[in-house]
Amino acid sequence: MVVKCVVSYDGTNYKGWQVQPNANTIQKQIEETLYQIHHCTRVEAVASGRTDTHVHALGQVFHFITDLNLSEKDWKFKLNRLLPKDIRIREVTFETDDFHARFSCTSKRYDYLICTNGDDPFVRNYMYVEKRKLDLERMTQAAHVFEGCHDFTSFTSSKIHEEKSRVRTITECSVHEEENCIRMIFKGDGFLRYQVRMMAQTIIEVGLNHLEVNDVKEMLEATDKHVCRYKAEAKGLYLVEVNYD
Amino acid sequence: MVVKCVVSYDGTNYKGWQVQPNANTIQKQIEETLYQIHHCTRVEAVASGRTDTHVHALGQVFHFITDLNLSEKDWKFKLNRLLPKDIRIREVTFETDDFHARFSCTSKRYDYLICTNGDDPFVRNYMYVEKRKLDLERMTQAAHVFEGCHDFTSFTSSKIHEEKSRVRTITECSVHEEENCIRMIFKGDGFLRYQVRMMAQTIIEVGLNHLEVNDVKEMLEATDKHVCRYKAEAKGLYLVEVNYD
Repeated sequence: MVVKCVVSYDGTNYKGWQVQPNANTIQKQIEETLYQIHHCTRVEAVASGRTDTHVHALGQVFHFITDLNLSEKDWKFKLNRLLPKDIRIREVTFETDDFHARFSCTSKRYDYLICTNGDDPFVRNYMYVEKRKLDLERMTQAAHVFEGCHDFTSFTSSKIHEEKSRVRTITECSVHEEENCIRMIFKGDGFLRYQVRMMAQTIIEVGLNHLEVNDVKEMLEATDKHVCRYKAEAKGLYLVEVNYD
Repeated sequence: MVVKCVVSYDGTNYKGWQVQPNANTIQKQIEETLYQIHHCTRVEAVASGRTDTHVHALGQVFHFITDLNLSEKDWKFKLNRLLPKDIRIREVTFETDDFHARFSCTSKRYDYLICTNGDDPFVRNYMYVEKRKLDLERMTQAAHVFEGCHDFTSFTSSKIHEEKSRVRTITECSVHEEENCIRMIFKGDGFLRYQVRMMAQTIIEVGLNHLEVNDVKEMLEATDKHVCRYKAEAKGLYLVEVNYD
């Protein structure tokens, strides 16, 4: 039985999704919970992709394979009872055997939140704080540069496998003013390591008049992994949804 | 010089306002910061009133007396630079010598937030979570019982000084449905220890059909410190504003 779970987490206290030695991670917590439910048998939780240290999720997806005979409702209940309060299973559904949280994924949405309300003790772990004036019109123009199908070599970690494709399609990259914050929305068929954070900070730099929109175009066209030195803080980033056809 | 400060804090990591031995409190953090700024001289921070462990503040007020010659803007900057990120000074103003954060206070507003969105990892420290159905109409009726001038002996800590007056005037006690939460607003000339939390949980119990509106009236009229066994969790409570004429 393949079980698909939609999970929200507050990433503040975690070193990201992926299991690592001597670190508290979301995957570790979920796999320890699955281990308990499966009477001390190890069960792998396979996510749609990793999230970095301190990145949050509203709708991360993972799957696991089980022989246990529980209903969807019981899975949700059992998992949430054992998981820490900052990791919450929102939805459990049974899938066909060919479902894979990572390989079946067709698109994702990330949001990046910038607090424009000055010092607010309640957003310190949940938004990037920018006290300087941001020019939304310029940010919107910069965001549009990223839309479409591009080679995003310039906007990913420099420690990447040379042979892997860095071509991705971004269907929406937009900037919205909300009460006390600015929301950037990134929708696409997939994102490279650090891609959203590097695009986000680049858009912010345009908003601060440190870069021109044309600089962003040139950076993107350069397909050079050393060209972008910007990466927005993790705490402002949310994996909002992961879609499957 | 009397300096008045408006401060916001995330109460999650603190044992309330008041200095206590071997505990991290808001007052302790502020007084340590004042001690540093005053070159190792102790300066007392006097608040409008205590807040309990895990209670938050959007607009708590405190004052301190100083000989230092700094501008209002410099005080705000210096304090915020040294304070932890979960305590933020919002406003600094110089007051006349007769100003006292506690004794000059004429009214306060507290809000109590109930999350009605089920399990949400982001509100675990910031709202009371109620998954059962709450009847807002009944809650509103219960809230109105508290409005006006009453002896609130039934709605405060049983460890109170017998000689002190427990008469307070509540100018607003109301219940509002918002997106994903219910907000209760409490405005009055002052509140006794635990009073807001005890009223809040009593209103919730009426919303859950565990109490009738008439029971609340009888509890209030009893002026008996043993009659109310309810006290809402601290994490849903916010000291929103403190007013001075």
